[in-house]
Amino acid sequence: MKRLQLFENIREKESFLCVGLDTDIKKIPEYLLSSEDPIFEFNKQIIDATHRYAVAYKPNTAFYEAQGSKGWESLQKTLEYIPENIFTIADAKRADIGNTSSMYARAFFENMNFDSVTVAPYMGSDSVKPFLDFENKWVILLAATSNPGGADFQNLFLENNKRLYEQVIELSSTWGSSENLMYVVGATRPEALADIRKLVPNHFLLIPGVGAQGGDLNAVCEHGMNNQCGLLVNSSRGIIYSDSSKDFASSAGIQAKKMQQKMAEQLQRI
Amino acid sequence: MKRLQLFENIREKESFLCVGLDTDIKKIPEYLLSSEDPIFEFNKQIIDATHRYAVAYKPNTAFYEAQGSKGWESLQKTLEYIPENIFTIADAKRADIGNTSSMYARAFFENMNFDSVTVAPYMGSDSVKPFLDFENKWVILLAATSNPGGADFQNLFLENNKRLYEQVIELSSTWGSSENLMYVVGATRPEALADIRKLVPNHFLLIPGVGAQGGDLNAVCEHGMNNQCGLLVNSSRGIIYSDSSKDFASSAGIQAKKMQQKMAEQLQRI
Repeated sequence: MKRLQLFENIREKESFLCVGLDTDIKKIPEYLLSSEDPIFEFNKQIIDATHRYAVAYKPNTAFYEAQGSKGWESLQKTLEYIPENIFTIADAKRADIGNTSSMYARAFFENMNFDSVTVAPYMGSDSVKPFLDFENKWVILLAATSNPGGADFQNLFLENNKRLYEQVIELSSTWGSSENLMYVVGATRPEALADIRKLVPNHFLLIPGVGAQGGDLNAVCEHGMNNQCGLLVNSSRGIIYSDSSKDFASSAGIQAKKMQQKMAEQLQRI
Repeated sequence: MKRLQLFENIREKESFLCVGLDTDIKKIPEYLLSSEDPIFEFNKQIIDATHRYAVAYKPNTAFYEAQGSKGWESLQKTLEYIPENIFTIADAKRADIGNTSSMYARAFFENMNFDSVTVAPYMGSDSVKPFLDFENKWVILLAATSNPGGADFQNLFLENNKRLYEQVIELSSTWGSSENLMYVVGATRPEALADIRKLVPNHFLLIPGVGAQGGDLNAVCEHGMNNQCGLLVNSSRGIIYSDSSKDFASSAGIQAKKMQQKMAEQLQRI
């Protein structure tokens, strides 16, 4: 998907919501466990109930890998079930030496046809660039993550007085452009968002951490929104596990709609 | 596997060779493609031919994921085929926020029973610690990697005058011990090895980059060996693709034996 298309979807749906499909077999309603593929069945119902309010879906690969090859099939089926005009993110946080990163890129962009994959920056340029070689595909690079440990290394100051995450953004932004590269910035760090917007005014940012992790949507938009929105705000647990009964899907739909309505308000900024 | 057992295996086999099972369907002999599971069939023959000379096997998950759910099955079968007293490494370079890292740990340690998994440090403590909660299992944390891009961020100096990879080692070494934590240090960076040995004199180091990537075994041992060896030196392409004919396995065996003989000499240092 191209950036302009993504922005058009955002305008049309008045939403920049990404629904995180972190589907844990231990957390889904028990009655689903008797179905042939419980994880896919859960996702299917979640997608049916939320796709009107979401512009992106983000399955985190960990939850599928934990089920072995069967989980990998659930992931594939989930991806195929997501409506075509919705941006898809393989939240995989991969990266390896060049020839190996190419294999990961093949796994997510060719075999599975995701629009994007999250990538970890620690191994540097040749670990990231193979993902950027695919047309109409995106790298979403970890910059300032939402978890407590995110500060351990990312926030450290380098001898040039920049924080590590700033250096990651500055250098990596020369490897791609705002047409094929986004950054992960946690909603729990709005102060980082403002700094990052100065470095990459046009890039989209993927923002996890609103909801269960405590980030605030208003602060995120105040510091992070640009004139093409420039934000994909993710919610996982707050939507997909909002109700553990048989009504989980309609409850997820209600939560997604609530987020969408808040986002529609925020979009009046632009 | 416990550290002492690993050292005993090294003494017994006079080898600290790790064979990297980076099995690319596009690089294996064509005649294998008609077998039911060509990747597993290739690995099986490689393992048969090399297990006398190796103390560890390291499948890189990228090569299996590139084949989708079928690849995941090949990985599982490969793991089960590796003889029990050989240390197994899932070279997956995973890490995510705490609850998600737990899912990855479950995938590799419970569902698949690997002895260890490689982990990326960028997301900090809560992304690494869930892997350390498993008894007799190991984290192998990326420190100074062998690829050209490894220098992009890992070599940067922090305001405390330490390089990032030194900081990663110093801080992370407080999360585990030399009984459950190793580090990845590229053979292409022997100068880093000497510095790292000062920081973690007792930890095992996993050393990729000997062979195809140009690292030198002698320099690695000179700077990196400790009194319990403390090294696992990996070779992937130099062994498994040393011959592209039907004789690939016996050729791999010959290459592995050559490495083992060089290692036996190096072990006389201790």
